[in-house]
Amino acid sequence: MSEIRQDQATKRWVIMATERARRPHDLAGQQPAAEKQPEHSPKCPFCPGNESMTPPELAAYRDGGGPADSPGWQVRVVPNRFAALSPEGEVAIREPYWFTNVTGVGVHEVVIESPVHNASPATLDAEQVTRVLVAAGERFNCLQQDRRLNYIALFRNSGFAAGSSLTHPHTQIIATPITPTNIRFEIEEARRHYDDRMHCVYCETIEKEREAGVRVMLETDEFLVFEPFASRWPFETWIVPKQHSSVLIPGGPDQVRPLAVALRAALSALYRALGDPAYNLVLHEAPLRDSCEDYWHWHIEILPRLSTAAGFELGTGIWINSVLPEDAAAYLRDFVQLQ
Amino acid sequence: MSEIRQDQATKRWVIMATERARRPHDLAGQQPAAEKQPEHSPKCPFCPGNESMTPPELAAYRDGGGPADSPGWQVRVVPNRFAALSPEGEVAIREPYWFTNVTGVGVHEVVIESPVHNASPATLDAEQVTRVLVAAGERFNCLQQDRRLNYIALFRNSGFAAGSSLTHPHTQIIATPITPTNIRFEIEEARRHYDDRMHCVYCETIEKEREAGVRVMLETDEFLVFEPFASRWPFETWIVPKQHSSVLIPGGPDQVRPLAVALRAALSALYRALGDPAYNLVLHEAPLRDSCEDYWHWHIEILPRLSTAAGFELGTGIWINSVLPEDAAAYLRDFVQLQ
Repeated sequence: MSEIRQDQATKRWVIMATERARRPHDLAGQQPAAEKQPEHSPKCPFCPGNESMTPPELAAYRDGGGPADSPGWQVRVVPNRFAALSPEGEVAIREPYWFTNVTGVGVHEVVIESPVHNASPATLDAEQVTRVLVAAGERFNCLQQDRRLNYIALFRNSGFAAGSSLTHPHTQIIATPITPTNIRFEIEEARRHYDDRMHCVYCETIEKEREAGVRVMLETDEFLVFEPFASRWPFETWIVPKQHSSVLIPGGPDQVRPLAVALRAALSALYRALGDPAYNLVLHEAPLRDSCEDYWHWHIEILPRLSTAAGFELGTGIWINSVLPEDAAAYLRDFVQLQ
Repeated sequence: MSEIRQDQATKRWVIMATERARRPHDLAGQQPAAEKQPEHSPKCPFCPGNESMTPPELAAYRDGGGPADSPGWQVRVVPNRFAALSPEGEVAIREPYWFTNVTGVGVHEVVIESPVHNASPATLDAEQVTRVLVAAGERFNCLQQDRRLNYIALFRNSGFAAGSSLTHPHTQIIATPITPTNIRFEIEEARRHYDDRMHCVYCETIEKEREAGVRVMLETDEFLVFEPFASRWPFETWIVPKQHSSVLIPGGPDQVRPLAVALRAALSALYRALGDPAYNLVLHEAPLRDSCEDYWHWHIEILPRLSTAAGFELGTGIWINSVLPEDAAAYLRDFVQLQ
């Protein structure tokens, strides 16, 4: 089992997951994955027919039926074989005063987004993206019951520069017993804003960005997709629901389809405008047991890795961006296609 | 002139420096610099004889004398040709309510650490590292007088994976009119700790790490060099002065030599143990006009870029590290050589 350590000076958490050193991309120097991949790869643990190469599945979307861990699925959820946290055991905080740490209890899962090895949410149709969101939602519903957990992170790494080692399209879920420092920090700022203005800072962002217009890539009935005013990365893109809610409510196809449509349109525009750039996608949600529903607003951040965060960014937290979000939005708008 | 924008939701600052898009490494896809470089490169703007390829020098260390912007220097400080901030003009905060931004006034300089193209602070002798620190200190003394500035960041990017495009050894200085979000956050945590315990959190870290011993790489009369308990990156290394001070006091060779010795020993151990890894080095100092001298403690953080921060790290601020700092320290101790 890994160990979660806290830095006393900053309260920052680090998961010490030494078993993960086996993972191919954990130490640098490897080559990027070849750009052109086949539709099926015999060695890929996420390809149909290779179900035995992953731990037993947790959920799957099988339109045609069939037993677990057999081919015929459209979406499949499995535990990460190189999990950073372990689902067994109790959460114990150990504080032999000074060196605070917590047992590495938690969940690390993989949502395999398609049976097709070289597919991408940018090129999948909205129905398939809908199935992915439904399957992820089922896992959220299940994990929310686990009282040991305090936060569920959903994220997607695409491309070598974004820390991905496997080409086969997948999203990851990590659920932790601790509340992430960044999320805590963002929620505190949102609360301060709400205390001052009696208005959610993300709702206000939507109003101001719609008014300004210049940074909007796409607006649907349910979502605003835009390049934020203080974008850290070139072509940073946010997907924010127009209706205020602190959490993304899991649901069936009809509930999640509007998000699938906006998400696919955003990823597909980035894909076609920038030639399949490496990126990280992260869901920002409320912690599981935190009453911040009035002032916190869930959203998705897409961070293309077109530049490298260096010493200045890592040290100060000030970012240097060489592309204005207004220019990025104007460029991307031409590539938006709603399905 | 660039523009410094603030995100309303997080108060995070971003420098929009569109002129920098010309820089070769700003958009990804380039090849890493060749590992073996010559001692002198005719095209390198930092090599002797090419002084006209940089803006006029701001300071230099010339043992043998000689005019400015001519060869014969041991260390040379010049403005960054692709500066993220501009030294001319007034700081103006513009807040057409909602979209807060500040004029991009500030300083971006380069300390060229050696006339030798393929040198490295890991392989330079302690006297040359001392000269570099003296020259950087002269710039600090000068910049501290500028009332427009609030923070001086000193950092070093080494290797392509750490965001460096130029091989010739150099350190950068960026001075900003804003206080960095990360530094503000670290100082607030340090103040809370001081309020609770009447003791500087970094002084206490030194005590606890000396007591534990297992994460210490090197101890000199003046510095503790160690792998922090909650290291974010494999082989993350901190250099912390044993004497409490919120700022690194610039000074002559005798004052800065102890730091030069510790710094050279740390970088050289990493260089030899890990085969010249890419890394970022960052000085953490107090803001220029902030009275935090009791509870804030300057230090240097070295972050080897042996793994990639991906969606989970960027989104949550929780890091996953696959190498225990105890193991890293044990391994590095064999490579420490004091000069």
